[in-house]
Amino acid sequence: MPTTTQDALSVHPDRLLPAEPGLRKVAREIYDSVKDLPIISPHGHVPAQWLADDVPFEDPTSLLITPDHYVNRLLHANGVSLADLGVGQKEFGDEQKRNAFRLLCANWKAYRGTPVKFWFESELADIFGITQAPSAHTADAIYDQIAEAIARPEFRPRALYKQFGIEFIATTDDPADDLRFHEKLVADSTWEGKVAPTFRPDKYLEPATAAWNGLVDRLGEVSGVDTGTYAGWVAAMENRRAFFKEHGAVSSDHSHRDARAEKLDDAEAERLYAKARNGEITPEEGDTLRRDFMFQQARMASEDGLVMTLHPAVYRNHHTESFEKYGADVGGDIPMSVEFTRALQPMLSAFGTHPNFQLVLFTIDETVYSRELAPLAGFYPSVYVGAPWWFIDEPDAIRRYRRAITGSGAGFGRTSGFIDDTRAFLSIPARHDMSRRLDAGYLAELVGENRLTMDEALDAAHDFVVTQPRKAFKL
Amino acid sequence: MPTTTQDALSVHPDRLLPAEPGLRKVAREIYDSVKDLPIISPHGHVPAQWLADDVPFEDPTSLLITPDHYVNRLLHANGVSLADLGVGQKEFGDEQKRNAFRLLCANWKAYRGTPVKFWFESELADIFGITQAPSAHTADAIYDQIAEAIARPEFRPRALYKQFGIEFIATTDDPADDLRFHEKLVADSTWEGKVAPTFRPDKYLEPATAAWNGLVDRLGEVSGVDTGTYAGWVAAMENRRAFFKEHGAVSSDHSHRDARAEKLDDAEAERLYAKARNGEITPEEGDTLRRDFMFQQARMASEDGLVMTLHPAVYRNHHTESFEKYGADVGGDIPMSVEFTRALQPMLSAFGTHPNFQLVLFTIDETVYSRELAPLAGFYPSVYVGAPWWFIDEPDAIRRYRRAITGSGAGFGRTSGFIDDTRAFLSIPARHDMSRRLDAGYLAELVGENRLTMDEALDAAHDFVVTQPRKAFKL
Amino acid sequence: MPTTTQDALSVHPDRLLPAEPGLRKVAREIYDSVKDLPIISPHGHVPAQWLADDVPFEDPTSLLITPDHYVNRLLHANGVSLADLGVGQKEFGDEQKRNAFRLLCANWKAYRGTPVKFWFESELADIFGITQAPSAHTADAIYDQIAEAIARPEFRPRALYKQFGIEFIATTDDPADDLRFHEKLVADSTWEGKVAPTFRPDKYLEPATAAWNGLVDRLGEVSGVDTGTYAGWVAAMENRRAFFKEHGAVSSDHSHRDARAEKLDDAEAERLYAKARNGEITPEEGDTLRRDFMFQQARMASEDGLVMTLHPAVYRNHHTESFEKYGADVGGDIPMSVEFTRALQPMLSAFGTHPNFQLVLFTIDETVYSRELAPLAGFYPSVYVGAPWWFIDEPDAIRRYRRAITGSGAGFGRTSGFIDDTRAFLSIPARHDMSRRLDAGYLAELVGENRLTMDEALDAAHDFVVTQPRKAFKL
Repeated sequence: MPTTTQDALSVHPDRLLPAEPGLRKVAREIYDSVKDLPIISPHGHVPAQWLADDVPFEDPTSLLITPDHYVNRLLHANGVSLADLGVGQKEFGDEQKRNAFRLLCANWKAYRGTPVKFWFESELADIFGITQAPSAHTADAIYDQIAEAIARPEFRPRALYKQFGIEFIATTDDPADDLRFHEKLVADSTWEGKVAPTFRPDKYLEPATAAWNGLVDRLGEVSGVDTGTYAGWVAAMENRRAFFKEHGAVSSDHSHRDARAEKLDDAEAERLYAKARNGEITPEEGDTLRRDFMFQQARMASEDGLVMTLHPAVYRNHHTESFEKYGADVGGDIPMSVEFTRALQPMLSAFGTHPNFQLVLFTIDETVYSRELAPLAGFYPSVYVGAPWWFIDEPDAIRRYRRAITGSGAGFGRTSGFIDDTRAFLSIPARHDMSRRLDAGYLAELVGENRLTMDEALDAAHDFVVTQPRKAFKL
Repeated sequence: MPTTTQDALSVHPDRLLPAEPGLRKVAREIYDSVKDLPIISPHGHVPAQWLADDVPFEDPTSLLITPDHYVNRLLHANGVSLADLGVGQKEFGDEQKRNAFRLLCANWKAYRGTPVKFWFESELADIFGITQAPSAHTADAIYDQIAEAIARPEFRPRALYKQFGIEFIATTDDPADDLRFHEKLVADSTWEGKVAPTFRPDKYLEPATAAWNGLVDRLGEVSGVDTGTYAGWVAAMENRRAFFKEHGAVSSDHSHRDARAEKLDDAEAERLYAKARNGEITPEEGDTLRRDFMFQQARMASEDGLVMTLHPAVYRNHHTESFEKYGADVGGDIPMSVEFTRALQPMLSAFGTHPNFQLVLFTIDETVYSRELAPLAGFYPSVYVGAPWWFIDEPDAIRRYRRAITGSGAGFGRTSGFIDDTRAFLSIPARHDMSRRLDAGYLAELVGENRLTMDEALDAAHDFVVTQPRKAFKL
Repeated sequence: MPTTTQDALSVHPDRLLPAEPGLRKVAREIYDSVKDLPIISPHGHVPAQWLADDVPFEDPTSLLITPDHYVNRLLHANGVSLADLGVGQKEFGDEQKRNAFRLLCANWKAYRGTPVKFWFESELADIFGITQAPSAHTADAIYDQIAEAIARPEFRPRALYKQFGIEFIATTDDPADDLRFHEKLVADSTWEGKVAPTFRPDKYLEPATAAWNGLVDRLGEVSGVDTGTYAGWVAAMENRRAFFKEHGAVSSDHSHRDARAEKLDDAEAERLYAKARNGEITPEEGDTLRRDFMFQQARMASEDGLVMTLHPAVYRNHHTESFEKYGADVGGDIPMSVEFTRALQPMLSAFGTHPNFQLVLFTIDETVYSRELAPLAGFYPSVYVGAPWWFIDEPDAIRRYRRAITGSGAGFGRTSGFIDDTRAFLSIPARHDMSRRLDAGYLAELVGENRLTMDEALDAAHDFVVTQPRKAFKL
C-alpha cells in the first residue's frame, strides 16, 4: 500500500480501480481497452471563444480557481473569502492571484475524498508534469511551473483540445447569442475539431422574474418575430432553435425548479402570457406558464429533433448576500428533491414514442434512479438516464448510479454516456478518465460475480464511451 | 475469469456470489445449505387454471414473451413495437410468434446487467438444457428446442410445479372470482401441491373510477348482499373475504397510489359512499373514501386474520396511447415516491398490536427502507418488511435491501422472505435462486467481517427461505 | 472463517473491519492508531446525576434493558410486552427484573445483524468479561455476573467514566433545569472529568401543545422574566441560554417535525404569541410560530455562540396506546422524510456566514446526504454534516454516510465527528469503537483504491476522532 511523504504528488496508475487483486486485474484490462478512446463531450460550459480565438490562458488562478465553483465553494466553507479567490472582482492583480493559489494549496487537505482532488491532481501531474502535492510551501513553485507552461504554444486551447483527444464538444449558449465563435470555427479551415452550441433558454421560460420581459423583447429582435403574443414567443423560439441547429446544435438544455411540462389550453396560455408581458404575473402563475413553455419546447423538439436534456431542481443562489456580492454560479446553488414520474407524464404521453423526440434526464437527487428514471428509460424509446451530474459526479455516486439504474430497468443501453458539464477545460480529460476507470471497475465486478462474460464487459465499456453518447445525443 | 464466445450460454455455478475468493467460499457453503429447499411463493400471479387444467404450454413466445412485461418493456424501449411481440393481439400466428422470439434474441444485448438476463438464461439452461446464448442467429434453434420440449409431458404445469420443488404458491384473484380452479385442485386427489387464492380488491376501493359502480353491483350479486349502502359494501367484502379464506387464502393484497388508511366518521363515509354510488364523487373525495375503505380492510384483517400486503405508489398506464392500444400491464407502469410513517399511523395505532393483524409492506421507493419500514417493523409486532419488488427485484437492489433494513431496525426476523410476484411461471425457480444466492453473499460478508458466526449465518439463511415466509404469511 | 458453538460469545478483534485480506491489514493499522484515543461525546442523554452522585447501578435490567428503547423495541416487535421489560412500571421487583433479562437473552437471535448485538456483546465481553453468548440457558449466569460486578467500586459511574477514557460528555437538559448536578461536579475537586449541559428547548417552541402555556409560565419563573409577551419569551430564552453557557454548555439541540426556521414580521409574531398564550392557537399557526421561534434561536446562537444542532423529522409516539400506557421514548418514534435546502434558506441566508454561528445537521432520512447536507456544508462555513443518528447509527448506514457526503461536497472536514446520542452509559465505548472501526475500513478502501495515501488516511482517522468534534462543537 502506498505511503508518500507530504510533498510527493500521488497519481497511481490504478487509482479508482477495485482494491481486490482479482477484480483489479479484470478492471485494468477493461480500462486499458477504453482509456485512449476519443473524448465525446455533448454537454459542458467551455466558452467557444477560447477555441475560436485560441489565445493563451492568462495565469494559473484565473484558469484553475476563480471561475471554478467546485474549487471555490469548499474553500469558502473553510473560511476563505470568495473575494480573495478573485470571484466577482473587477480588478485582481498578480499578487492577489498568486495569493489565491496559495490559499488553495494551503487548504489542500479540505479536498481529501472529493473528486476535485482527483481532477486537480491529475491535471497537475498529467498536463503540467508537476510532482509535488499542493501545500503551503509548494504553492509558489507549482504556480510558477503552471504559469511557465501556459505561456507555451502547446498549452493554447486548440493544442490542448487535440492533445486531450477531444472528438466533439458542446458549449452552452443563450438563445439570443449570435454564435459568432462557432461560425468562426466552422469557417476556419485550419481547425479540425468539432464544437457545437447548445440551446439553453431557461431565462426565457421564467415569466415571473424581473429580467423576463427584457429578454423576450431581445428574443423578438434577434429572431425578427414580434414576441408580443404567445404565438410570437413560440415562433421566435422555433426560429432560434433552427438557427442553433444550423450552427450544429444537437440539444437544448433546461434547468428549472421542477421537471413539469404541461399543456394549458390556448386561451389560458395567451391570458397568462399577456399578464406576464404586462409584468403582472404572480410567481404561481409564472410556474404554470413555464410548464406550458416547457411543453412547447418538447413539441418543438419532436419536430426539429434537438435532443432535450433536463437538469432540474436546484435552489439557485441560496445565500442571498453572496449572490448580491459575487453574482450567480459562485458555489451557492443547493440541490432539492425532484419528481419525474408525475411531472413528465403529460410530456411523455404526448411525445414519448415520437421517433424524433429524445429526452435525457439528469438528477442530483439519487432517489429517482431506481424509482423513476430507470423505469421510464426502460419503457420509453425516447428517454435516456443521464450520467451523474454536479455534486454527484464523483466516484462513490458514480458507482451508485450504475448499481441503481442498470438492473432496475435501464440496462446499459438506456444511458447517456458520460457528461463532463464543466467550465474547467483542463479538467475534461481527468473527468472522462474518472468515469472510464469507475465503469471498468463496475464491469469487473459483474465479471467477477459471473453476471457478465469478459467479452460482454469489454463491449459494454466501449459502448459507454462511444455508442451511448452518440445514440443519446444523435451524434 | 470467464470469457466465452458469443454463442455459448454462460450460467456459472457461482454466479451472483461474491467475487473475493474468501467470501465466495463462505457464500458457497451457505448457498449450498439452502439451494435445494422447497419454494414457498406466497405472492404471485400465476393463473390457477394452468395447474388445475394442466394443459401444455402453447409455444415459446406466448409462454416467455407476450405476457411478461419485464421482457417486453425493454424491447419497447429499444424500438420494438409491442404489437410485434403479440401484446394485445387477438390473432398472432406462428410466423409472428417465431418473429417475436427473433426480436428478443436479436436484442439480447439490451438485457445485460438486468435480472431478466439472469432469469431467462437460467431458464434456458436449467429447464430447457439450452447451451447457446440468445442472438439473431441462434433464435430459431432455441425456439425450436423450447417448442419441442413444452410438447412433452414433463413440461406440463403440474410436472414443472413438482420439478421446481414448489411447496406453496398463491395466485392473485378478484373478489368476485368463483375460485373454481382452486376448488378443482382441492377436489383432485391426484394433485399434491398447494395453491391458495389471494384477495385483491383494489378496483372495488377506487370509487371515483368509471368501472366502480358496475364492480360494486357485481360484488353485491356474488356475495348476496345489497351494496347500496356502505354497510352493505362492508358486509359484502366480509362475505367475500370469508369465501376466499375458506378456499385457502392467507392474505389480501392492496395496491393504490398511496398507503393511507384513515377512518372517516360513519355519517361522512355513508355520504361519500352514496355520492359514489350516484356516480358523483370527485377524485379527491374518491381518495378520501378509498382511505376509509382501506381502514375497513385492516379492521376486517384483524378479525378474519388474512395477512394484509401493501404494494403502493405506482403510476399505472403512464403512456396513455399504449394503454389504449394494448391495455394494462404492458410495461407502462412507473413507480412514484411513497410515504408510510404518517400514512399508516391511524391503521397501526388501531390494529398494530392486534394479535390477529399482520401487515407486509412492499415498496419500490428504496428511501423508506431505513427511514420508515425497518423502524416500523422493529416496533410493531404486526409489521414485516416485504422483499424487494418489481423494478428492484434485482441483484444490486436486493443487496441494498438487506443492508438498509437490517441494522436500522428490522434485523433478520421482521422480513417477509422472498416473493416472486410473477406471471412467468418458468422464471420462479430462477427468481428464488437469485434471492438465495444474494442472501448467501450478504451473510458471507457479515461472517467475513465477524459480525456473525458461521452457525448464525447458516441458521439465518434457512430462516430467510423457510421461517420468514411462514411467519409473515401465517403458513 | 470463525464458527463458534452457540454458547461462546464471539467478539473478534477485527470485527467490522473489511473482509478482504489486503484492506483488512490497512484498516487494522488505521484502527490501531485511533482505538485508544479519548472519547469526546458532545451529544448524549446520560443523566448528570449519575456522575455527580456516583451511586452504584442498581441491577442489570434497570441498567441495560428498561431505559434503552433500542433494546426494548425489537423485543416488543417479537411479541414481548413492554411491561415485562419494566417500561413504565412503578414497581418492578427482583424476580421481574431477572425475568426481563431472560426474555432478552431468549430472544437474542432477534438482534442478529443489528448494532444492538455489537454494542451489547462488546459490553458483555469488554466491560464484564463475560464469555458466553446470551441465550435462554445462559441468562441467569450472565445476570448474576453483571449484578456481582456493578456492586463493586470499579463499576460505579465515575470509575467507568475514567476507565472508558471519556474526555468530555454532554448531557441534554430542559431550559428550566437548575443544573444542580453540573454545579456539583464543577464544585467537586475530586472530579477530573468534564460534563457539559445541552440546552434543549423543544417543548417551549411548540405553542399548539397542551403543555406549552404551563412550560412558558415556568420559563418566566426560572428566568425572572415576564413571558406574557413574545419579547418576554425571547428575553427569558436568552437568559436561560446564558445560564446554560455559564454552566459549560456548548450547544443547543432541537428536534421538531421539520427543519424550518422563518422570521415572521414582529406584529404577526406577537399576535400569534398572544393567541398561543390564550390557548387559542391552531396547529397550523403553532407550526408558523414555532418556525419563528427557531429563527430566534438561530439569531441567539449567532450572538451567544452556542452551536445549534438539529435532529428533525421524527413522528413521536406513533402508537397511541403504547404512549398512553408507557409514556414517551419507549421505542414508538418513527422517522419521516425531511427537507433542508428550502427549510434552512432563511436561516442560512441570515446567519450562514456569521462568524459565531455553527449548525450541525442530523438526519435519519439518508436521501439528504448527497442531495442537501453535503452541498450545504460544502458552501456555508457554519454548517457541519452530523454523524448518522438513531436508527442509522449502524455499520451499513455509517458506511453509506461517508460514501454519500464526502465526494458530494463535505469532504472530511465538514463533518461533526461521532455522536453517541445515548442514554445507555455502558454502551458508549462500544458505540465510539464501532465508529472508529468503520471509519478505518472506509479509509482503508480509499487507500486500497489509491484515492488517498496512507499518511492522509492516518491523519484523517485522527481528525475524525479528535479534530472534527472539537471544531464542530467548539470544544
